[in-house]
Amino acid sequence: GECSQKCYDIFVLETVCVAWFSFEFLLRSIQAENKCAFLKTPLNIIDILAILPFYISLIVDMASTKNSSKPGGGAGNKYLERVGLVLRFLRALRILYVMRLARHSLGLQTLGLTVRRCTREFGLLLLFLCVAMALFSPLVYLAESELGAKQEFTSIPTSYWWAVISMTTVGYGDMVPRSIPGQVVALSSILSGILLMAFPVTSIFHTFSRSYSELKEQQQRAASRQMHQLEESTKLAGGSSSQWITAASPPDAAREDGRPELDQEAKRSC
Amino acid sequence: GECSQKCYDIFVLETVCVAWFSFEFLLRSIQAENKCAFLKTPLNIIDILAILPFYISLIVDMASTKNSSKPGGGAGNKYLERVGLVLRFLRALRILYVMRLARHSLGLQTLGLTVRRCTREFGLLLLFLCVAMALFSPLVYLAESELGAKQEFTSIPTSYWWAVISMTTVGYGDMVPRSIPGQVVALSSILSGILLMAFPVTSIFHTFSRSYSELKEQQQRAASRQMHQLEESTKLAGGSSSQWITAASPPDAAREDGRPELDQEAKRSC
Amino acid sequence: GECSQKCYDIFVLETVCVAWFSFEFLLRSIQAENKCAFLKTPLNIIDILAILPFYISLIVDMASTKNSSKPGGGAGNKYLERVGLVLRFLRALRILYVMRLARHSLGLQTLGLTVRRCTREFGLLLLFLCVAMALFSPLVYLAESELGAKQEFTSIPTSYWWAVISMTTVGYGDMVPRSIPGQVVALSSILSGILLMAFPVTSIFHTFSRSYSELKEQQQRAASRQMHQLEESTKLAGGSSSQWITAASPPDAAREDGRPELDQEAKRSC
Amino acid sequence: GECSQKCYDIFVLETVCVAWFSFEFLLRSIQAENKCAFLKTPLNIIDILAILPFYISLIVDMASTKNSSKPGGGAGNKYLERVGLVLRFLRALRILYVMRLARHSLGLQTLGLTVRRCTREFGLLLLFLCVAMALFSPLVYLAESELGAKQEFTSIPTSYWWAVISMTTVGYGDMVPRSIPGQVVALSSILSGILLMAFPVTSIFHTFSRSYSELKEQQQRAASRQMHQLEESTKLAGGSSSQWITAASPPDAAREDGRPELDQEAKRSC
Repeated sequence: GECSQKCYDIFVLETVCVAWFSFEFLLRSIQAENKCAFLKTPLNIIDILAILPFYISLIVDMASTKNSSKPGGGAGNKYLERVGLVLRFLRALRILYVMRLARHSLGLQTLGLTVRRCTREFGLLLLFLCVAMALFSPLVYLAESELGAKQEFTSIPTSYWWAVISMTTVGYGDMVPRSIPGQVVALSSILSGILLMAFPVTSIFHTFSRSYSELKEQQQRAASRQMHQLEESTKLAGGSSSQWITAASPPDAAREDGRPELDQEAKRSC
Repeated sequence: GECSQKCYDIFVLETVCVAWFSFEFLLRSIQAENKCAFLKTPLNIIDILAILPFYISLIVDMASTKNSSKPGGGAGNKYLERVGLVLRFLRALRILYVMRLARHSLGLQTLGLTVRRCTREFGLLLLFLCVAMALFSPLVYLAESELGAKQEFTSIPTSYWWAVISMTTVGYGDMVPRSIPGQVVALSSILSGILLMAFPVTSIFHTFSRSYSELKEQQQRAASRQMHQLEESTKLAGGSSSQWITAASPPDAAREDGRPELDQEAKRSC
Repeated sequence: GECSQKCYDIFVLETVCVAWFSFEFLLRSIQAENKCAFLKTPLNIIDILAILPFYISLIVDMASTKNSSKPGGGAGNKYLERVGLVLRFLRALRILYVMRLARHSLGLQTLGLTVRRCTREFGLLLLFLCVAMALFSPLVYLAESELGAKQEFTSIPTSYWWAVISMTTVGYGDMVPRSIPGQVVALSSILSGILLMAFPVTSIFHTFSRSYSELKEQQQRAASRQMHQLEESTKLAGGSSSQWITAASPPDAAREDGRPELDQEAKRSC
Repeated sequence: GECSQKCYDIFVLETVCVAWFSFEFLLRSIQAENKCAFLKTPLNIIDILAILPFYISLIVDMASTKNSSKPGGGAGNKYLERVGLVLRFLRALRILYVMRLARHSLGLQTLGLTVRRCTREFGLLLLFLCVAMALFSPLVYLAESELGAKQEFTSIPTSYWWAVISMTTVGYGDMVPRSIPGQVVALSSILSGILLMAFPVTSIFHTFSRSYSELKEQQQRAASRQMHQLEESTKLAGGSSSQWITAASPPDAAREDGRPELDQEAKRSC
């Protein structure tokens, strides 16, 4: 009664989606031989993260309607507000449903493989950014707060934001150094930002293109093997339908085998 | 009478241009052996899109002058306004005349070939952008609307615009996250934007430079063949003017043959 | 009397500099065997462009002091104002003195060689930019003026400025599309800008690095030859000081020979 | 008494840190055979720069508390204010402690090696930037102050700031050319900025990736040698603990040898 029609429709739609995804996830988890390995796969973790918040919010909602029926409870309301904020953050994870596309898109699979292979490069990129931020933020803050008109650089944390926005050449323009020493610091931070950002990027690129061609080859090999087996199974006229399942499973097994093989290569490549 | 002199001059100029282009297009369509293939060529589709709006607007203009002479019709005016808006959009397509340059510029031809060859890469680029937008927009909206001063991030669609502008490092500065969680989201979205945008770009580059050298070679081969045939035709003293036409056509045929050949290679290259 | 002390000092400094450059230029032009080729060398054209405005402004200044002594002449003043504006633009060319550094810096020489070799690539870059500007400017203007609040996009030429600033990912933020169709146009123009700008850039890079290594090698060869001849001339004990001059000239001749050789290669490389 | 509790805690923390770093630095300097070479190592210079300001500020603080007890001294206060400003700048160098990470991170070591190897490329980058700034700043100033509304371009030094921000495609938007000649200058400066910045960047990239793989190989070789010697020393059952120290030192010696070897290669590579 308290919810408008449109909001109710969205709720129904989401319930149907989540029910379908939960059902499919349960089937897959029952079919999996190694339950532990199944739960550790990145794509399955993402599935859990996307589905769980719905059930948690459902439980919290029921609890809060019980609580709200009780009189009093001003302290409880404050507590509930916080829980609501956390829940809203969790439900923003619904967007991880998008990642389910990764099961069908070669590009997103390559992206995932690149991320897993190049954790060291990503760490390097973040380390470089943090070092440069730690160097330039106090300098620009000092230059601006001592010598400038002190309008925009109110504290060192704010300067960190400025350093990030300048080094990535985004340049929103909400904080701009006005004094000449501040502008010299800005110039050096921008130049070093361009150079630093670009260092690990090139090696990440190479890993991406290599992963892409590897995955493509693998997919084509699996497809041709499947085709080959299909042809063989059609040649054997006396094949039962149970044979179809064995014909369909080898590519899956090949993929399962291919994953660790790729991961072993990853240690060499990055 | 109701139109100023300058506006009238532009109208005359456009009429002459469109007349010339229509005449040339008609001649080419008559000369073409395979009408269907002729209409499916990208450059010819662009020609039609550039020429048609003039004729449509002419017809609508005549209809509206007839209608406006009739008394009443307030509902008709509203309808006409909408048609006028669509027409103005269509007439902005006049700018596609520029694409006619492509027939004479090797660079624009290479651009066209690259676009046709790398549709998969462009799709990948858009898919990556959309996934990243779908991930970061709700997060930044939540962080800003809950914890920030809620000045600029009024809705999730507005956050999509912010995510695009940040990930491409344009940074207009019309929307800037002010809270610290929002700025952390901004940092991760900018970094992932730089990396994501760069992934397919490198492979598109390689295709572009390969296409450029291929088209150049092909052009030179065609030119040298034409030169060769010209020399032969001048050696044969008894050649009539009709032979000139056969001497000029083979390069054209070669180009027509070359196109599909390049398209077949495209499937391998991208 | 009417000029302050500091302004006077700068004038004296400039006069001395220009006198020295003119003297050096005259000596070189006298020494040059082929006057026509000498005047066509890019660095010498830059020298003339940098020196001439000083003399022209001197002449105009003298003429204007003569004129200003005459009574009346309101029309003359307006004419003089325009001449003054042109002169100020010309005297901003003084900055071309910087280019004299190019005679001594390998990097700037490489830059000059790259520019001469890659005129076609620069033309391509400009052509791509112009085509994209011509496509996106009317679209964004239409979308913003019809559907938006029509604040910033006042005319199509202003939209050209917006398109340039967006496609190069500078993003000053003085003009921002507010309507959703305008933002879609913005997204496509930014993406195409990133891709278009990057196409010829890669080939220009390769030419630059090739030119750099070529010039370096050439310089080292010239230096080693000079060293070799110096050793030989010191071995010949009876060498007079006039022989030193012949020993010094061959590297110069080698450089003069090397230039056209590089220019011939340029036709192949770009 | 005059200092709050939090400020006092930070002071204690810093004193402990600086005491530890000083102690460690003293030990290393005593252990070093060649004191002069030890003091010339970049990482040790950084250590001194990071530690010294603390002691200097301590001395100045003590001197100022003595002085402030004396009556009078308005001129002294002004002098002390300036000293305080210099000191605050020096103490911002505390951030160089971060550089101590370089001893343990391969990425930061590669960064340092790249910087030492590519000083010429960095110089080239700065030279290109300065030349372009010197060319475009007066032009945009002239165009804007003469023809524009003269709002933002108040002087040529301010225009230098604009040129830097535009050529690096940051685009804060605090200064935007409004007149058409100014916008044409802006377009050419942005394009040349993108190209100029990118020229030396590519060669710096190659040096970085080469340095990275070199350092990695060297580290692995050192690690495998250490492993080998460890195995040998465990085979020899009668080994005393003093032998462990000799087993541990060769890699260090190898690193000391490796540095100059790399530096010699640097002269070839850049």
